[in-house]
Amino acid sequence: MSDFFSEARSAQAVNGRMAEPVSPRLRQIMTSLVEHLHGFIREVELSEAEWQQAIDFLTRTGQICSPERQEFILLSDTLGVSMLVDAINHRRPPGATENTVFGPFHVANAPLRQMGDTISLDGKGESCLFRGRVLDLDGQPIAGAMLDVWSDNEDGYYDVQQPQSQPRWNNRGRFITGADGRYTFRGVRPVSYPIPDDGPVGMMLAALGRHPWRPAHTHFMLTAPGYQRIVTHTFVAGDNYLTSDAVFGVKASLIQHFEPNPRGDTLWTADFDFVMTTQSPYC
Amino acid sequence: MSDFFSEARSAQAVNGRMAEPVSPRLRQIMTSLVEHLHGFIREVELSEAEWQQAIDFLTRTGQICSPERQEFILLSDTLGVSMLVDAINHRRPPGATENTVFGPFHVANAPLRQMGDTISLDGKGESCLFRGRVLDLDGQPIAGAMLDVWSDNEDGYYDVQQPQSQPRWNNRGRFITGADGRYTFRGVRPVSYPIPDDGPVGMMLAALGRHPWRPAHTHFMLTAPGYQRIVTHTFVAGDNYLTSDAVFGVKASLIQHFEPNPRGDTLWTADFDFVMTTQSPYC
Ligand SMILES: [Fe+2]
Ligand SMILES: [Fe+2]
Repeated sequence: MSDFFSEARSAQAVNGRMAEPVSPRLRQIMTSLVEHLHGFIREVELSEAEWQQAIDFLTRTGQICSPERQEFILLSDTLGVSMLVDAINHRRPPGATENTVFGPFHVANAPLRQMGDTISLDGKGESCLFRGRVLDLDGQPIAGAMLDVWSDNEDGYYDVQQPQSQPRWNNRGRFITGADGRYTFRGVRPVSYPIPDDGPVGMMLAALGRHPWRPAHTHFMLTAPGYQRIVTHTFVAGDNYLTSDAVFGVKASLIQHFEPNPRGDTLWTADFDFVMTTQSPYC
Repeated sequence: MSDFFSEARSAQAVNGRMAEPVSPRLRQIMTSLVEHLHGFIREVELSEAEWQQAIDFLTRTGQICSPERQEFILLSDTLGVSMLVDAINHRRPPGATENTVFGPFHVANAPLRQMGDTISLDGKGESCLFRGRVLDLDGQPIAGAMLDVWSDNEDGYYDVQQPQSQPRWNNRGRFITGADGRYTFRGVRPVSYPIPDDGPVGMMLAALGRHPWRPAHTHFMLTAPGYQRIVTHTFVAGDNYLTSDAVFGVKASLIQHFEPNPRGDTLWTADFDFVMTTQSPYC
């Protein structure tokens, strides 16, 4: 009987079982998911022992999750899924600043600071003057853009990872541009750090011959009325892990050069202009 | 730079990161998995909100798992993955008894019983005389085949689900064929039952317009020296859920007719011949 399961028509058997009411979008997603999932299993002829390993891996990944740890997001990140979803949902014209992964360490409502202020509250790390402009696609300055910045400390940790030893809001702040669209603030040159690798995802990376490191980066989120939000990082040029970011976040356009600043009050200067695109009227 | 991530070449970016030492089989599996996973996301253009829903679903699925409950296996079952893996790993020539899913309720080392014995220890349910032969592909009887049988009770529960109210080993037993290859035992006509649907998988089924029921079935595992193990069920002909088994276990060749048995000591008789294939010399 044709409506029973068979190896050849396995995906059809499963997808044919959906029945009203099912939302059209859910139907579309599940149909594609089942086809690709079965296609994968068929292509590699997954053994029963391998299937059991996959069940165990997914179970351990779910069980290690806690309010402080999201191992499935880590899995999504390390399989390039997070970056692919980000890319699909933030296509921009040439010249606009590209998105990259949001990451787990953003904290909303960081202190509003004045241009020129420092975000380094403990004064530790190699000091750097960050500066640049927020522009539109025509190169005109955007006034009233909010630039939300966060980065790790000299040991590779965000303040929320070291609540005992770092001051609250260390290496975080929000800045609002004036009429010239310029921003300038002091902070520290970020350092590379490993993603948590003591769980199932770390075991997976090890089995694939991959390391858990991210190249040094500073996180930025830009918002401005009438413009699309940008969530991105700038990456320190020359970092050892630029071409092997464990979560695939690096884009060539996001690499930032750090220049020595012998006559200034910081060790380094780092310039970067952000280019925002207008919101589509449908957003 | 070509080794950075891009939407168009996302799978290549991820798979290109694998490095020695990685086992050839793991490399093959991960390459295919990443290609199909990215292919799915690209095809449906998964939104960020949908991605978040998927992360939440997988996390809840992992967190509900316990020694008594394996929600990822349930997910595999309800997406037809378990049956596809079973089919790929147990291809058999025409005429041989087909496999179906093992299910979570088998218990090893059930009591060895004599032909004709009953497996119904509480005497509840509609009694049935099960009988048939264990044959090879040439129709010759197989002596010394072990037939391990388990089924639910009249309420749709296995003994291990009701340790307080069912005797241990209720509706379970093992039988060994003699020279004629015949088996015969008494038990109860099984009834349909729902898979656990109070978790994430149940929510998924509801959203897809699917019910959680399995058609009534009796589980069998057959082993015999020199022959391939068979793990299968027989399904009660006429069951309401035959064409909509929540886990896609039904195959047309596994449907069994129950006949009234007016002159016997049971309400029903049910006949079924099992046909085993020899082990390949490589197994
Ligand atoms: Fe980061
Ligand atoms: Fe069952």
